[in-house]
Amino acid sequence: MINHPPDEQHIDAEMLKIEVNIDDSPGEWLGYVMEKLFDAGANDVYYTPIYMKKNRPAVLLQLLCSKARLEEMKQILITETTTLGIRYYPLTVFRMERQIRKVLTKWGEITVKEGVQNGEVIKSSPEYEDCRRIAEKYQIPLKDVYAEVWRKLD
Amino acid sequence: MINHPPDEQHIDAEMLKIEVNIDDSPGEWLGYVMEKLFDAGANDVYYTPIYMKKNRPAVLLQLLCSKARLEEMKQILITETTTLGIRYYPLTVFRMERQIRKVLTKWGEITVKEGVQNGEVIKSSPEYEDCRRIAEKYQIPLKDVYAEVWRKLD
Amino acid sequence: MINHPPDEQHIDAEMLKIEVNIDDSPGEWLGYVMEKLFDAGANDVYYTPIYMKKNRPAVLLQLLCSKARLEEMKQILITETTTLGIRYYPLTVFRMERQIRKVLTKWGEITVKEGVQNGEVIKSSPEYEDCRRIAEKYQIPLKDVYAEVWRKLD
Amino acid sequence: MINHPPDEQHIDAEMLKIEVNIDDSPGEWLGYVMEKLFDAGANDVYYTPIYMKKNRPAVLLQLLCSKARLEEMKQILITETTTLGIRYYPLTVFRMERQIRKVLTKWGEITVKEGVQNGEVIKSSPEYEDCRRIAEKYQIPLKDVYAEVWRKLD
Amino acid sequence: MINHPPDEQHIDAEMLKIEVNIDDSPGEWLGYVMEKLFDAGANDVYYTPIYMKKNRPAVLLQLLCSKARLEEMKQILITETTTLGIRYYPLTVFRMERQIRKVLTKWGEITVKEGVQNGEVIKSSPEYEDCRRIAEKYQIPLKDVYAEVWRKLD
Amino acid sequence: MINHPPDEQHIDAEMLKIEVNIDDSPGEWLGYVMEKLFDAGANDVYYTPIYMKKNRPAVLLQLLCSKARLEEMKQILITETTTLGIRYYPLTVFRMERQIRKVLTKWGEITVKEGVQNGEVIKSSPEYEDCRRIAEKYQIPLKDVYAEVWRKLD
Repeated sequence: MINHPPDEQHIDAEMLKIEVNIDDSPGEWLGYVMEKLFDAGANDVYYTPIYMKKNRPAVLLQLLCSKARLEEMKQILITETTTLGIRYYPLTVFRMERQIRKVLTKWGEITVKEGVQNGEVIKSSPEYEDCRRIAEKYQIPLKDVYAEVWRKLD
Repeated sequence: MINHPPDEQHIDAEMLKIEVNIDDSPGEWLGYVMEKLFDAGANDVYYTPIYMKKNRPAVLLQLLCSKARLEEMKQILITETTTLGIRYYPLTVFRMERQIRKVLTKWGEITVKEGVQNGEVIKSSPEYEDCRRIAEKYQIPLKDVYAEVWRKLD
Repeated sequence: MINHPPDEQHIDAEMLKIEVNIDDSPGEWLGYVMEKLFDAGANDVYYTPIYMKKNRPAVLLQLLCSKARLEEMKQILITETTTLGIRYYPLTVFRMERQIRKVLTKWGEITVKEGVQNGEVIKSSPEYEDCRRIAEKYQIPLKDVYAEVWRKLD
Repeated sequence: MINHPPDEQHIDAEMLKIEVNIDDSPGEWLGYVMEKLFDAGANDVYYTPIYMKKNRPAVLLQLLCSKARLEEMKQILITETTTLGIRYYPLTVFRMERQIRKVLTKWGEITVKEGVQNGEVIKSSPEYEDCRRIAEKYQIPLKDVYAEVWRKLD
Repeated sequence: MINHPPDEQHIDAEMLKIEVNIDDSPGEWLGYVMEKLFDAGANDVYYTPIYMKKNRPAVLLQLLCSKARLEEMKQILITETTTLGIRYYPLTVFRMERQIRKVLTKWGEITVKEGVQNGEVIKSSPEYEDCRRIAEKYQIPLKDVYAEVWRKLD
Repeated sequence: MINHPPDEQHIDAEMLKIEVNIDDSPGEWLGYVMEKLFDAGANDVYYTPIYMKKNRPAVLLQLLCSKARLEEMKQILITETTTLGIRYYPLTVFRMERQIRKVLTKWGEITVKEGVQNGEVIKSSPEYEDCRRIAEKYQIPLKDVYAEVWRKLD
């Protein structure tokens, strides 16, 4: 069974990358901010370790979002971090056409996200949350769940 | 007492990010370059650890500056580092409206930089150099100086 | 076909970790040093990005070796890096019992290293160099070669 | 109200640090392993980015645990990661005497962990989970919750 | 003897930076991808350690290439990594005018790449591969080979 | 002219490495702590970026000191950081025999630290602070000052 969620078609979209250097917030706040940004619709959020003036180990927060979300993201960054400045620039995001497939394993169904090009499946990624749920439920190593899915994909 | 230094108003400015990958300069030179770039008017300079070809741990130098400063920055990077190539691209920098406030503590006055939005103070950052000066002078932990300022801000 | 190379039995060995902080060598020298250390019998060598005084992005070189190799390693570090100091401490290394197995794929045989516990195979790792050789020879994605091996391991 | 949970007294304990270099597991598995290790009683687990041979960006997993937990931790690392080797060494852990205190804020009670030396409170850390719960419930910035607690601690 | 390879003149070129976040490929695959990208004409490829959601240590792959090479690079990233999304943006690359010079040392000729500005040599970099070849052939420290070249450059 | 400061003889000393994971202090405090630790006699202090539970980018502070300084270092870490736990372990530090030499350049004398083995000079490091002072005074690139010293060392 295969379906094409409309929002999963191949698109070459204009998006924004937003960046903030943070040297005056403790790390425990940053884990929280990451969640808030994802909940508000960021497509991705990640941290890079950086080194700033005055021997300060710091963190570069980067996020990707649609241009429509700039204000929302800004608002969260302004209220939840200590930064006084936010920078951003446009970039192009190419996303492979994807299709969702269900694979039946001995422990039940697992979703696999497939990347398609010219009608051919180029890659298949088992969904982490499905594999994790099964690994915990049946008390088996997570990597064995992945291995089982890969075999079924043959 | 509150003042608004003219250069601290909220602005949405076009700036430049300049980047250089460095795998052939020792780290001790890079601490020096950072200072030179700040002295020449860079708005920010920071280092990120990167991994380059041939198993080389290296450093990505990034700096933010106004477009007017491109040539100056290039000149420093060319003369002070070993790089033969420099890359840059424009970005938009949003800076919150700021106001400077003085807070009186038992050890003397400490400057606090406030971020303001719609006339409301969203955040307050005690100035590091003031707190540090007091911590050293009175031999108290730096974090206790910050704590004292936060209480006064109530 | 399965063989047990004598040096691959499960052992709980005393080894050494040697560490050097490097802030005065360019990265391109460090890629070279890594090779020299492996050639001289280091069991592992890896770099970690660190931040040192005076705003210096630097590198921590760490290596694991048998106690018998301390002098050799020291000699390479002294002659090939700029460090004037080397530190080390003992640690215990647990290595799973391993067995080498050959898997026949449509492109030829690929070596798989298996980790065994209580006679049971706990994990299987296709040899990178075998997979790489085949990926290059047949111009196929490296990950497809791994996938093929995993399926054969079923 | 102040209580001293028996396991929170100042102790100078012998513990173990366990280390594993991982260059053949995807990052998404590592987030899972971290949880498993904490659930099994690791005192701390953290990742450091490292650079290994053949231009491989990799991850150093480090964990701290009591000597009694070595076998359990080994078992999880062996089954949940792809490593064939695990190393460890003893270290001394000094833990400040702690006391738990409840602080009443306008949003309710928040737990504060205090570090004590010679009967004097040296530091106070609001419990992250309490602050987070309140920030989410009342839709206020997390940092404002911390600020409120710090003021109450005066 | 000095020559100016036509492709070494000073140019201020428009290029592309391509970025991919990778949290589901093992590090050993990434060393391989780096080579493939260089072989296909990437001007530079480097990895940065990042931290992604769900406690995943991950890797940011960045590469610089001419706009003409976008499709080729995309193709390699799509087939050799597990990513389903690729982002990119244009940047300006300034490259110093370069000239190649041969320096005669007691061990033979070594190429030196010089950076020139207004007809003046601003910097000189001995070619790593030449120095390495000699260091290995004559069993001398790599840094001594560099030192010898620097002296000759006087 | 050559002198051997008594504390610069080759020694194979037992020292301590002290470690603290910090996820609840802002980076600007950490630059300050580093200085305090050096002032109190730490032989080295450096930061490593780490990734802790709950998606927290954090910092590992490591320092090397003599066993005699443990209490002093502990005291600074306890009062200046927010940590409630400190860990440490002994290690052996090998330091090359060193000798100080003065090199006369056109800009004045520069100190060079030499590493000696079996009476032979294995390496020479120009003192950063001397080179920096001259680079600033004469407004010349720092790397040109180093280059000049290397030539004189011939």
